[in-house]
Amino acid sequence: MDNELRGACIIGQSGGPTAVINASAYGVIRTALDSDCITRVYGAAHGIKGVLDDKLYDMNREDAYELSLLLHTPSSELGSCRYKMKDPDEDDTDYKRILEIFQKYNVRYFFYNGGNDSMDTCDKISRFMAKSGWECRVMGVPKTIDNDLYGTDHCPGFASAAKYIATSCMEVSKDATVYDNGQVTIIEIMGRHAGWLAASSKLASYFGAGPDLIYLPEVDFDMNAFLKDVRRVYEDKGKVLVAVSEGIHYADGVFVAEAQTSATDGFGHAQLGGAANILSRIVKEDLGVKVRGIELSLLQRCGAHLASETDVHEAFLAGKIAVEAAVSGASGKMVAFERHMLDGKYLCTTKLLPLTAVANFEKKVPIEWITQDKNNVTDDFVDYCLPLIQGEPKLVLENSLPRYARLKKILARV
Amino acid sequence: MDNELRGACIIGQSGGPTAVINASAYGVIRTALDSDCITRVYGAAHGIKGVLDDKLYDMNREDAYELSLLLHTPSSELGSCRYKMKDPDEDDTDYKRILEIFQKYNVRYFFYNGGNDSMDTCDKISRFMAKSGWECRVMGVPKTIDNDLYGTDHCPGFASAAKYIATSCMEVSKDATVYDNGQVTIIEIMGRHAGWLAASSKLASYFGAGPDLIYLPEVDFDMNAFLKDVRRVYEDKGKVLVAVSEGIHYADGVFVAEAQTSATDGFGHAQLGGAANILSRIVKEDLGVKVRGIELSLLQRCGAHLASETDVHEAFLAGKIAVEAAVSGASGKMVAFERHMLDGKYLCTTKLLPLTAVANFEKKVPIEWITQDKNNVTDDFVDYCLPLIQGEPKLVLENSLPRYARLKKILARV
Repeated sequence: MDNELRGACIIGQSGGPTAVINASAYGVIRTALDSDCITRVYGAAHGIKGVLDDKLYDMNREDAYELSLLLHTPSSELGSCRYKMKDPDEDDTDYKRILEIFQKYNVRYFFYNGGNDSMDTCDKISRFMAKSGWECRVMGVPKTIDNDLYGTDHCPGFASAAKYIATSCMEVSKDATVYDNGQVTIIEIMGRHAGWLAASSKLASYFGAGPDLIYLPEVDFDMNAFLKDVRRVYEDKGKVLVAVSEGIHYADGVFVAEAQTSATDGFGHAQLGGAANILSRIVKEDLGVKVRGIELSLLQRCGAHLASETDVHEAFLAGKIAVEAAVSGASGKMVAFERHMLDGKYLCTTKLLPLTAVANFEKKVPIEWITQDKNNVTDDFVDYCLPLIQGEPKLVLENSLPRYARLKKILARV
Repeated sequence: MDNELRGACIIGQSGGPTAVINASAYGVIRTALDSDCITRVYGAAHGIKGVLDDKLYDMNREDAYELSLLLHTPSSELGSCRYKMKDPDEDDTDYKRILEIFQKYNVRYFFYNGGNDSMDTCDKISRFMAKSGWECRVMGVPKTIDNDLYGTDHCPGFASAAKYIATSCMEVSKDATVYDNGQVTIIEIMGRHAGWLAASSKLASYFGAGPDLIYLPEVDFDMNAFLKDVRRVYEDKGKVLVAVSEGIHYADGVFVAEAQTSATDGFGHAQLGGAANILSRIVKEDLGVKVRGIELSLLQRCGAHLASETDVHEAFLAGKIAVEAAVSGASGKMVAFERHMLDGKYLCTTKLLPLTAVANFEKKVPIEWITQDKNNVTDDFVDYCLPLIQGEPKLVLENSLPRYARLKKILARV
């Protein structure tokens, strides 16, 4: 083959974990292990920090069955990091160290699995290697429950979190309406800048019962309008279920969750932390009824037992395609998804995007998918999200509890 | 049949909802609909309040398929209440009203599905009916995620919550150890007086990864010992996962979650509400590391998608047996479970207990199942709990989301 490049590869995981990031890692690892020109497969301990610290796990020494369990093992099995690489033009210490490690292990392929920041890291490493003359193919494998990566129809990890959120909202909706006294329940959902996850709660209301009101960070939050919304639903039904994104903010940009006593919320409350907590207290004082705040917290991003099998497959595919494309000569690219609807059937294909086109951009929920009143999303979101959450995860269970991958994580030595 | 008593029946649901209380209701409703001597089946809207308010749903007019979906529909589909009946010797107004309704609809069978308080209600109604001369058979059908009902090996609802807790702890345990910096995660689990649910988190540590430390309300909570425990695990592993029961309390009986600033916690903190929140802040100040508090909140009691199918079947069975026993002449009894281990295989049978023996007693986790250090439970708990959580729920899904029962809830008219 013209483009043949023989050498080892490194796979690293970065940023917040998801239910399917290990499925992507498995896509990379399995495909790399099976590739003729990839001579050794290393897993970086805690992302790029593992490279810098010379802590690489030898994936060739892992048991094939245990590796396959990565498909349904939540969180980042190799460990993650939130390490922001400096601009190499200002300080190239880290990059020189990475080159040193790449040379030490003859690393010719680098796969990095993460969100915005990770694609930025990927891009910088890719450009540094090109400049330094070390032939090395660098590929980004997307991941983020936030679904905010630019240029891809959706991101691996999002759909499983969306399914967890929708199902949990259906369940809570059943629970929170059981007594005949009034009750307001406020569910706080992840998403600091993009409201894709909070919007997912719409699936619950659309297909059964779910939030009456949904607030996203794409639009400014207005406390008076919010209280008016809650009061209206309460007067109508006696129960209100509200979904809020953790990132809802006032017009001045201050997060509702961070607004201090005397500052923006204007209600004289000490800060409790968390949008749901703060709103719960304000609604309680306003309506005088029972209010409960629920934070889905880490549960929503690690709920592998409720993953979308479509998401699991696509996450694996993203990793697989990254390796195949790199082996064929691609570099400096991220694997992205394209959606095709054929006779009402959803199909997903992949494409490669330049990392430069992806890094540091954020894709938000289209404003036209948010209702005029800014308190819900339209059915367009349902059409977008529904195909992504389909399929039940083929989890391996032992004693009716999940059996996750148990890797040996033997440190590489050369 | 000697004991034949013809007439209508009422099924009511009471107290906090569970993932399987509707399975018990279905056990009652299906068996009653199929019974020759039960002429009509009514569902009380919001438990005993529905009887008092003459709000009864006519179950004979429901679609059989929709009723069958109750098996996997969480929460109390008929509505619940927390209405404490007065002592009939002091004030029998409510009882006279119940008798009036029973006579109006010719109710000869009353099934009440709930926990301690509901069994008390049941018992009082049973005794009042006997005294008043209205022939009526009253049966209690147990339910409580708290697992604290006296005289039964376990309670319907507990195992599904336990499975939800164990699985969630496994998932969070994966997520909370992903970065290479130190982290303490504190998970708050329901259980005001009995620690069965918090103890369930032990299944996660036993079978994979879960809490390092577990604190139950059966023993006094000692803040200094707790901080010492956390520090020890932190120094050893750099990560600590803690499970606490919401009901943990100091030696003077004050709940940790309710200890005020200057009062018992002695750390000068304003109250945040919730044991996890309070402990998180104290640990953060003590250790100076990242601490996250997670409250499983309502999610743990309505997680039907993660129910134990054993629990679903037993819950159904409890309802079915209650009807069959009543039809055969039993009254004033609660259905209870007995465990049999035959060649290592778990079998569950039912027995009938007098309501008077059950009402107002609480069954707690045996002290000998709590470790000497009061910071974990022994393997005895695992042996007890594991058989109960087995089997995956046969949930009906539509669009990969739960399809719950949709009842018509047509009000009965006579």
